[in-house]
Amino acid sequence: MEHVVIVGLGLIGGSLAKAFAAHTEDYVAGIDTDPAVIEAALAEGAIAKEGTAEDLAHADFVYLCLYPQADLDFLKAHAPEIRKGAVVTDVCGIKGEICGKLAACAEQNGFFYCGSHPMAGTEKHGYFASYADLFKGASYLLAPCGAPEEVVDRLRAKAFSLGFGRCVLTTPEEHDRMIAFTSQVPHALACAYVLSPCCPKHRGFSAGSYRDVSRVANINETLWTELFLDNAGPLTAELDTLLENLSAIRNAIASGDRSGLCELLRRGRLIKEELGE
Amino acid sequence: MEHVVIVGLGLIGGSLAKAFAAHTEDYVAGIDTDPAVIEAALAEGAIAKEGTAEDLAHADFVYLCLYPQADLDFLKAHAPEIRKGAVVTDVCGIKGEICGKLAACAEQNGFFYCGSHPMAGTEKHGYFASYADLFKGASYLLAPCGAPEEVVDRLRAKAFSLGFGRCVLTTPEEHDRMIAFTSQVPHALACAYVLSPCCPKHRGFSAGSYRDVSRVANINETLWTELFLDNAGPLTAELDTLLENLSAIRNAIASGDRSGLCELLRRGRLIKEELGE
Repeated sequence: MEHVVIVGLGLIGGSLAKAFAAHTEDYVAGIDTDPAVIEAALAEGAIAKEGTAEDLAHADFVYLCLYPQADLDFLKAHAPEIRKGAVVTDVCGIKGEICGKLAACAEQNGFFYCGSHPMAGTEKHGYFASYADLFKGASYLLAPCGAPEEVVDRLRAKAFSLGFGRCVLTTPEEHDRMIAFTSQVPHALACAYVLSPCCPKHRGFSAGSYRDVSRVANINETLWTELFLDNAGPLTAELDTLLENLSAIRNAIASGDRSGLCELLRRGRLIKEELGE
Repeated sequence: MEHVVIVGLGLIGGSLAKAFAAHTEDYVAGIDTDPAVIEAALAEGAIAKEGTAEDLAHADFVYLCLYPQADLDFLKAHAPEIRKGAVVTDVCGIKGEICGKLAACAEQNGFFYCGSHPMAGTEKHGYFASYADLFKGASYLLAPCGAPEEVVDRLRAKAFSLGFGRCVLTTPEEHDRMIAFTSQVPHALACAYVLSPCCPKHRGFSAGSYRDVSRVANINETLWTELFLDNAGPLTAELDTLLENLSAIRNAIASGDRSGLCELLRRGRLIKEELGE
């Protein structure tokens, strides 16, 4: 049984707490600024108690599950309270902007830091959308940033016990480049897509394609504005790639270039086929 | 029991045949250029027999389930064989380019034509991807193009008996404008998206967002090239709208315009929320 502190019981922090409760024997304390969330988490058994400085002083693991800047602020404010030798991680969707700062804080204060990013989510957010099986079979990205191998191994083992299906070692730079493509572009796209004047009239004319592209437009704009701006370089580059490829398809359609259009679509199909998807 | 001829047993035609077999008492003859498809459809009981000129001469309903131009070619070639008073429909994803021509052919030859478009599909295609419940709960778009109300009513009743959940009356022009947004843009987008150099490396770094946006990139490029070019005007306009809105988000990110970015994402969220999605 290990002592775990989860800071921020939103969709990810809340689901981590519920996964710990469902799948481990660990003792989990939860911190959240919303008393209604703490009350619900206690009532549902997602946490054993509301987290305090004392929990940080006994922590084996601390999961920072706030927004990026808030994670930094929390760690700086509470670093002296955290047990020497504890393993601290975050769950942010961007890594380059924060990992270095969090790692430096860890080094100065005698605990360990390894960045992580659970590749799981829904179009909903907040504690009341959280659930124990959110991570079932999902990928868990680990950005060690200099953490000893033993620390990475402990976080990895914890991830598997929480239901993750796979762990991937990465660097903050690679992480941010890949996430720009796999996650951030689809979120930007969903918002851009639903801004069409046709969108409010889609009912009856739509099926799976509309549903899939628009799903994550139901966005937490405060969080995603921060995530997008923290990853402005790689994300702008990916958006430029998409704008270029989409414009090529648009231009082939507008000019009636049948073979050029067919070739662009064919290239898309072959990429998916080669991936076996 | 009515006499039905389905022309083209691909994903849609094959699924229609299977839905007729599963949910109605109708007698269904199927036409397909691929003997293996006819053999499978007979063996599975999806069709009662391979369709011939005799079936067209007895048909109450003819469903044209080929590509747009092939539907036109088939109808012109076989119009004299079709029973006077029969109801002919097509299932094409575009309407403006073909409905007028199909309706004119019907008028010249003494049968009825009403355009239709089942709003259902998958990222797979061909008879062997078809299934009886493809249309369960889906929307069925009807473009009467001058067909008598009784003919529209009969097609509508048939649709409900096949499992459709809703019928929507539309015009070819409205249909094509809406479909450009709900279906064609997502298909173009999926292909453009997977052309990123990051795509082949996505495994481990991806989850639902990647899966949803890229799903239909597994495209039948021959069919979709025809559908896109047949709807070039409305589709180009929708793609321009998307390119503009996506560029606005891209520019807000690149310039670090926090409030402008947040407002664009917020507008996306509010549109989804107002739709109750």
